[in-house]
Amino acid sequence: MVKTYEKKGLTKKSENISDWYHDVVLRAGLADYSEVKGAMIIKPDGYSIWEKVQSILDSWFKKDGVRNVYFPLFIPYSLIKKEKEHLQGFSPELAVVEHAGGEKLSEPLVIRPTSETIMYKTFVDWIQSWRDLPLKVNQWCNIVRWEKRTYPFLRTSEFLWQEGHTVHRTPGEAEEMVLKALGWYKKFYEDYFALSVYAGLKSKGETFAGARETYSIELVMPDGKALQAATSHNLSDNFSKVFGIEFLDETGKKVNPFQTSWGLSTRAIGGLVLTHGDDSGLVLPPKIAFTQVVILPIVSKDVKIQEKISQKTAEIHSELVEKGINAVIDDDFKSSLGFRINKWELKGVSLRLELGAKELESETIQYVRRDNFEKGQLKFAGLEKSVADLLEQIQSDLYKKSEETKLALTLEADEIHEFKRILGKQKAFIRVPWCEDLECENRVKADTKATPRVLELENINQNEDLKCFACGKKARRKWLFAQSY
Amino acid sequence: MVKTYEKKGLTKKSENISDWYHDVVLRAGLADYSEVKGAMIIKPDGYSIWEKVQSILDSWFKKDGVRNVYFPLFIPYSLIKKEKEHLQGFSPELAVVEHAGGEKLSEPLVIRPTSETIMYKTFVDWIQSWRDLPLKVNQWCNIVRWEKRTYPFLRTSEFLWQEGHTVHRTPGEAEEMVLKALGWYKKFYEDYFALSVYAGLKSKGETFAGARETYSIELVMPDGKALQAATSHNLSDNFSKVFGIEFLDETGKKVNPFQTSWGLSTRAIGGLVLTHGDDSGLVLPPKIAFTQVVILPIVSKDVKIQEKISQKTAEIHSELVEKGINAVIDDDFKSSLGFRINKWELKGVSLRLELGAKELESETIQYVRRDNFEKGQLKFAGLEKSVADLLEQIQSDLYKKSEETKLALTLEADEIHEFKRILGKQKAFIRVPWCEDLECENRVKADTKATPRVLELENINQNEDLKCFACGKKARRKWLFAQSY
Repeated sequence: MVKTYEKKGLTKKSENISDWYHDVVLRAGLADYSEVKGAMIIKPDGYSIWEKVQSILDSWFKKDGVRNVYFPLFIPYSLIKKEKEHLQGFSPELAVVEHAGGEKLSEPLVIRPTSETIMYKTFVDWIQSWRDLPLKVNQWCNIVRWEKRTYPFLRTSEFLWQEGHTVHRTPGEAEEMVLKALGWYKKFYEDYFALSVYAGLKSKGETFAGARETYSIELVMPDGKALQAATSHNLSDNFSKVFGIEFLDETGKKVNPFQTSWGLSTRAIGGLVLTHGDDSGLVLPPKIAFTQVVILPIVSKDVKIQEKISQKTAEIHSELVEKGINAVIDDDFKSSLGFRINKWELKGVSLRLELGAKELESETIQYVRRDNFEKGQLKFAGLEKSVADLLEQIQSDLYKKSEETKLALTLEADEIHEFKRILGKQKAFIRVPWCEDLECENRVKADTKATPRVLELENINQNEDLKCFACGKKARRKWLFAQSY
Repeated sequence: MVKTYEKKGLTKKSENISDWYHDVVLRAGLADYSEVKGAMIIKPDGYSIWEKVQSILDSWFKKDGVRNVYFPLFIPYSLIKKEKEHLQGFSPELAVVEHAGGEKLSEPLVIRPTSETIMYKTFVDWIQSWRDLPLKVNQWCNIVRWEKRTYPFLRTSEFLWQEGHTVHRTPGEAEEMVLKALGWYKKFYEDYFALSVYAGLKSKGETFAGARETYSIELVMPDGKALQAATSHNLSDNFSKVFGIEFLDETGKKVNPFQTSWGLSTRAIGGLVLTHGDDSGLVLPPKIAFTQVVILPIVSKDVKIQEKISQKTAEIHSELVEKGINAVIDDDFKSSLGFRINKWELKGVSLRLELGAKELESETIQYVRRDNFEKGQLKFAGLEKSVADLLEQIQSDLYKKSEETKLALTLEADEIHEFKRILGKQKAFIRVPWCEDLECENRVKADTKATPRVLELENINQNEDLKCFACGKKARRKWLFAQSY
């Protein structure tokens, strides 16, 4: 394995994961800092990942009958303050417009930190009878939440996301929708980002401002910290009561419907980089990589052989492209082979193929996997198939590795001393019996910086006779706690 | 022809096109007013048109090597004021954030009215040598330009658009790019929106703030007014000099590159509605319609026949869908046939198929074209093919009609009295010999509200010995003037 980080001056991931992360995001060309503190520029290679996210999720949403809409960026302050908890939750992060078109506005406008209030005010007009339900809409848009400490992708004052909003006749239908959305996110992370996740219910202290229940996807970062990677909220009839959304049911009675909202943001890309990346740079799962394969022809001094190498390279390239594989050729012979290799390793391209005189003669091509640097030979005959198989193998191996890391970083504790002893040595997810009390939650947070991340879906119906790890009161379910990004 | 507007209370297009437009946009479910003055909600049927626009243009951009990016919503005031003309052009329309995260910002942030300044500041770092050129990026995003008088889609304080930005080594390459983008827009309007357009060069007074030359697409609205429907700017080295973008050319000399920017916005949807719509509502060209065909089964009192009708309806539906045609069934038998017909006419669905006992027996289905209300019968055998052919015919007939309207509303004048006489009778595009002088332009505008819309591409090389229609000075080319939206 070539220790390319030395040449490129990349910080080692194991030495300082935060510096490493900044280095990789910038050098691999995913993002750039901007003139505005806390706002980020998403560069073409970074944006291409977001476009993949969009195309996959959007197709699932549409298949389920969710339709895309666009609501205004601006929310009148009087509207956002209608739901009190909601306002409290977002108040410290709001950006406000008071002047526009050269005049002072009669009422300040808030830049959307999320769109519940502006949407639900309108849903009042859209919904009359049970025939108008379920209403299922989604929007892909930018969001502003002013942050003091920012990281590219992980926490920025402006970010991109999708927000789904649905309205249902019954609490049961709403709950079903909430879990369906959570299922999409889980499947997306597992099947495309090759990330093993925890999916489950949030504690009271971590519930979305205004929601009855929040479910989330939590990623276990390589440093043992948690990254909340998508959320799905059961809003019950909380907002519909506050905003006056009503429908006539089949008996002619006016009823407040039940709502959900769910979102996934560009933050996902940060989780992807943090988990799979290594000391050589980015590692992208083949299914979401803009470039899946790079072919490097190797210089030969013999002009005739050089010509044949170039010819074969072009041939292989078009075979792969025809098979639907995103392959590129790097024949920048002015740069050394090492330089070219480092460049594509940094960018995380899943598979490298090298073709020189030796390979030409043996009718094989050398491959190097980006995920584990494994080398091998592939025969020219049937190359598209072997490459496609290798890409699939890389995808599933990345997932397996992510699952192993997740499990290795998930520990168990029964009481607070053990809990603290673990956190004293390393950051990790710790599964503990917990009383689910908000006061207890706040005490643990103040004491250890760890918060309940999630009650795993499979533990929701747990009903054991346990003792809370922190306060000793009765507990019936085991929750995952961790420090979070 | 059923005069459905009476039943629906739609204003007649010929009586008051402005009221008619509002009625159609709202009732057909394209958009809704929002709580924020001048901002609009794009509803699912409206947004689906925008998604079509996006998918078509985006595929053309990508094929040309343009890559998508995302730059921040906020632009520091110090940055936007760097290019003086640019600031002057946008200053009256800016929305400004002075408070965020509960604090007063050290510098006000402007919400992007366009992204030249924030992008080009960054291009300084992205471009070092001639090898980095051309740089071609695009972003799909929201834009804010505060407007006093607003119309849904046509003029809103917030709108959606794409903005392409490219950087080139030579003025020639930049000019080529500007014309290529203009060509995309022209092709898009003609082939998808079925709109005949004028494409050409803008006058000095209408040139983008900071550009050397602006080209545009102008639509002739049915009331004879002009709608600027896309623009493509040759920025020359104006911005690159102001922002200090430089590259080392092949001789090792530092040079300012040449830039372009080009955009098309949700305003396009307004042009589409205004042109094709009629007294019954929206008329959508099949290629961009979310629903292309609606099948209406007709109630029969005979239960057995009713069953057969439903069965055949479902059969036809799946045949059409299999062929890639977006078809829906409306079997809402609680509503009258007339009600169902009006509903789908209002929504602009290109083709209506009606299936009752009579049709079942004759093994034909009745069709009604939305564009001209022409009725006819189609045999069950080979129905998918006949429907596909009809949709193509509708698409091309709509274009022809748009072309005829355009030509009928384009008149000629040689001097100002004739020009005014025409405008006294009707609004229209008027082709006139013009001196191209800014002072003359301003005088005509003050006097007649008409402005030079465009110098048609095919007239750019015109060099005749003419007299300016307005001031009598020498003129060498004929321009199109009109009042604009």
